[in-house]
Amino acid sequence: MAKKSAHVHSIRDVLKVHPDGVDLAKIDPAATPVGPTSKSEAEKDLAAMAEELDQLQENLYAEGIGGGRRRVLVVLQGMDTSGKGGTIRHVAGLVNPQGLHIVSFKKPTRAELSHDFLWRIRRQVPGPGMIGFFDRSHYEDVLVPRVDKLVPPAAWRARYQQINDFEAELAEAGTTIVKCFLHISPERQKERLVARLETPEKLWKYNPNDLVVRAKWSQYQQAYSDLLTQCSPESAPWYAVPSDRKWYRNWVVAQLLLQTLRDLKPTYPEPDYDPAAELSRLIEADPLR
Amino acid sequence: MAKKSAHVHSIRDVLKVHPDGVDLAKIDPAATPVGPTSKSEAEKDLAAMAEELDQLQENLYAEGIGGGRRRVLVVLQGMDTSGKGGTIRHVAGLVNPQGLHIVSFKKPTRAELSHDFLWRIRRQVPGPGMIGFFDRSHYEDVLVPRVDKLVPPAAWRARYQQINDFEAELAEAGTTIVKCFLHISPERQKERLVARLETPEKLWKYNPNDLVVRAKWSQYQQAYSDLLTQCSPESAPWYAVPSDRKWYRNWVVAQLLLQTLRDLKPTYPEPDYDPAAELSRLIEADPLR
Repeated sequence: MAKKSAHVHSIRDVLKVHPDGVDLAKIDPAATPVGPTSKSEAEKDLAAMAEELDQLQENLYAEGIGGGRRRVLVVLQGMDTSGKGGTIRHVAGLVNPQGLHIVSFKKPTRAELSHDFLWRIRRQVPGPGMIGFFDRSHYEDVLVPRVDKLVPPAAWRARYQQINDFEAELAEAGTTIVKCFLHISPERQKERLVARLETPEKLWKYNPNDLVVRAKWSQYQQAYSDLLTQCSPESAPWYAVPSDRKWYRNWVVAQLLLQTLRDLKPTYPEPDYDPAAELSRLIEADPLR
Repeated sequence: MAKKSAHVHSIRDVLKVHPDGVDLAKIDPAATPVGPTSKSEAEKDLAAMAEELDQLQENLYAEGIGGGRRRVLVVLQGMDTSGKGGTIRHVAGLVNPQGLHIVSFKKPTRAELSHDFLWRIRRQVPGPGMIGFFDRSHYEDVLVPRVDKLVPPAAWRARYQQINDFEAELAEAGTTIVKCFLHISPERQKERLVARLETPEKLWKYNPNDLVVRAKWSQYQQAYSDLLTQCSPESAPWYAVPSDRKWYRNWVVAQLLLQTLRDLKPTYPEPDYDPAAELSRLIEADPLR
């Protein structure tokens, strides 16, 4: 337990991106720097977290019903096959789905493009008491347009500050953001793409554009390094999550969420009525005769 | 297995509301007319359904990604404490949360009231490939306004047809609706309200207005009988789900969802690319050098 407690307290420090910069090439996507070192250990640990996560989520939800403004938003970014969907399935799947707000951001539609890039994001910020999961996010807007030169450099560079301002605004309104970059190696991506193409039930997950994007691997890594560096203020840092091992990735994101919720210490709201009076009204003067 | 198969096939027939009318007073909320007769049996059965439900949900989701238009919407209605939230937790909780669209409709806001009653509902219809769960719905608009005389009788009466038209329109666009009325007894409601008032962690679920509504039990039962009768066309009937026993209620709703999905037979979309060509491109001419 002492060991566990120790690694649990340090995971955020170990994976946190420091605002002075990050070099993704130096982070091993297959590493397990803290926490479990085997799949079986990770799965046992994840299952053990479920009850506490579920309880904290209920408290947060109840707090929201009672007028509280706090909520959590988990932002997932990563190259194709890094496991954004899988993380949602395994981590969000641990709590009551009624308290979740899950959004998958696709290529912007024509209508979305007619607004500023944060417009569609703002509409999907989770409500009070909710836990949101974003599968891709506003960070796509400093990735694709940059790599594919869809906007001038000055335009995507300006977005870093716009994003920091937006996230500060969210924080002020009660949203705690947990930003997870699912870091995989190009070798692991290749394995997973091959698996998709060789498995009939997985063909739907593949898109020929995946290879177009794969060809630009280094440009994307550079774009990721920059956004992680530019958008990691102390109040809302990115975490670089080694994601070559699915079990480790799931464990890490669950831990980051768990620790965030623990810090918030959400509590059941005080009733705005007198429970004893209601109880006697119900028992001694049941309005239903 | 023969026994199971038999009851599985008849549950919809047994619980379906017939358009010639329903008398709720004659339906025992504690009955278990088909299926499991004990909590342990029901829980085992529910767990056994999980894998198939999960698989069908993935197929439906994949179909949606591939351009399919089909989706499912489970509508839950019932008196306070009938277990709308609990049903979502236990039934929706069986599948991947990324494929769910869960909405809890509260008392309409001023903005919502400035539109027609279906406006806020239309905005929340699940997207293609999704499974939606409505905790309350447009049916509230033939309940509260009627019982509390907020609109003239002609207005709420006209809504039955408006609702039938709306649901026919949804069906045409690919939505299969599963409407579940969670039927409880006033005695069981009293027990559950008492439990909420006596348990500190449950106080947030109680609202003094619950007793105001409880006092109008028979008016609400009449309003429910009427809407169940008026809005049960063969294509989208209501099911009256005996809900005094939580384990039976969960089992029934899971079964109704499972059978609906089985009927739909959702399938993985055909790839719109050549998997073999992509595979050789990836393996022999990996764009990432």
